[in-house]
Amino acid sequence: MQISMYRASVPVLARALRNLAAVLRKGEAHAAARNVDPAVLLGYRLAPDMFPLTRQVQIASDTAKGCVARLAGVDVPSYPDDETTFAQLLARIDRTVAFIESFEPAQIDGSEQKPVTLKMRTGEINFQGLQYLFEFVLPNVYFHSATAYAILRHCGVELGKKDFLGVT
Amino acid sequence: MQISMYRASVPVLARALRNLAAVLRKGEAHAAARNVDPAVLLGYRLAPDMFPLTRQVQIASDTAKGCVARLAGVDVPSYPDDETTFAQLLARIDRTVAFIESFEPAQIDGSEQKPVTLKMRTGEINFQGLQYLFEFVLPNVYFHSATAYAILRHCGVELGKKDFLGVT
Repeated sequence: MQISMYRASVPVLARALRNLAAVLRKGEAHAAARNVDPAVLLGYRLAPDMFPLTRQVQIASDTAKGCVARLAGVDVPSYPDDETTFAQLLARIDRTVAFIESFEPAQIDGSEQKPVTLKMRTGEINFQGLQYLFEFVLPNVYFHSATAYAILRHCGVELGKKDFLGVT
Repeated sequence: MQISMYRASVPVLARALRNLAAVLRKGEAHAAARNVDPAVLLGYRLAPDMFPLTRQVQIASDTAKGCVARLAGVDVPSYPDDETTFAQLLARIDRTVAFIESFEPAQIDGSEQKPVTLKMRTGEINFQGLQYLFEFVLPNVYFHSATAYAILRHCGVELGKKDFLGVT
């Protein structure tokens, strides 16, 4: 048994996104219990030139759907980035998970060396599939979900690493 | 070509740790340039009941060395957790990377279903090797390195996500 590209991407990303959703639900419940305007949490930043919570979630979603689409060789679906509530962010995560889980292993497997080109503001980055997954996608998704966690934790939401990891 | 357990662990973890070291070096330089006591950054927390920067780095190191040792079936080396300076944390990262890179693929490969038991404060967690790597080790290492990044970023250190990802 060796690890397939499907196994290293779809279930790993879906798990990270579901755990991020659980973290957001605790943020939403905290705001309701403490009479905190949810918009304050959603707009909170750890530094003035860091992205706020909402954008962290959007980028985690974009990275996950972009990964699976690119590895499978289909167009990356575009979501409008118009979420203004916890409920809308949770719906976006659900939509992202449903999208990535709609792929069959056969559509992803064998993409280890598939060329992947990302167009960034600073130019193009060229990867092979395996490198893209391990050096760009997974660290990015965890970076943004950990930053979302850190924002809520900094704002007093009762969270533990177990929420992030999803272990019992 | 499929992904081996070695490919999914050793180079991925070594890369994450080297990028964490680069982030710490920017923190160290920032403290020197601004006349900030490095101990303030090393002891900084994003919430009173979160771990400070030093501990984030120690846990990232522990998780990485524990992973490779357990997958290879050797004793996990114990480090004393006595770092009090950036230089000492950077030396710990170097030592951790040297340890994990001392393994050959043949020592790690085939460990997908190897039983791994972690003794936590709250009891034992039982994993199989692949699940341990993807559901515990990688999210944990990125969680702590992203939190270390967030602490330094919150403290005004000039960092960008490129430093975390190590992409050029």
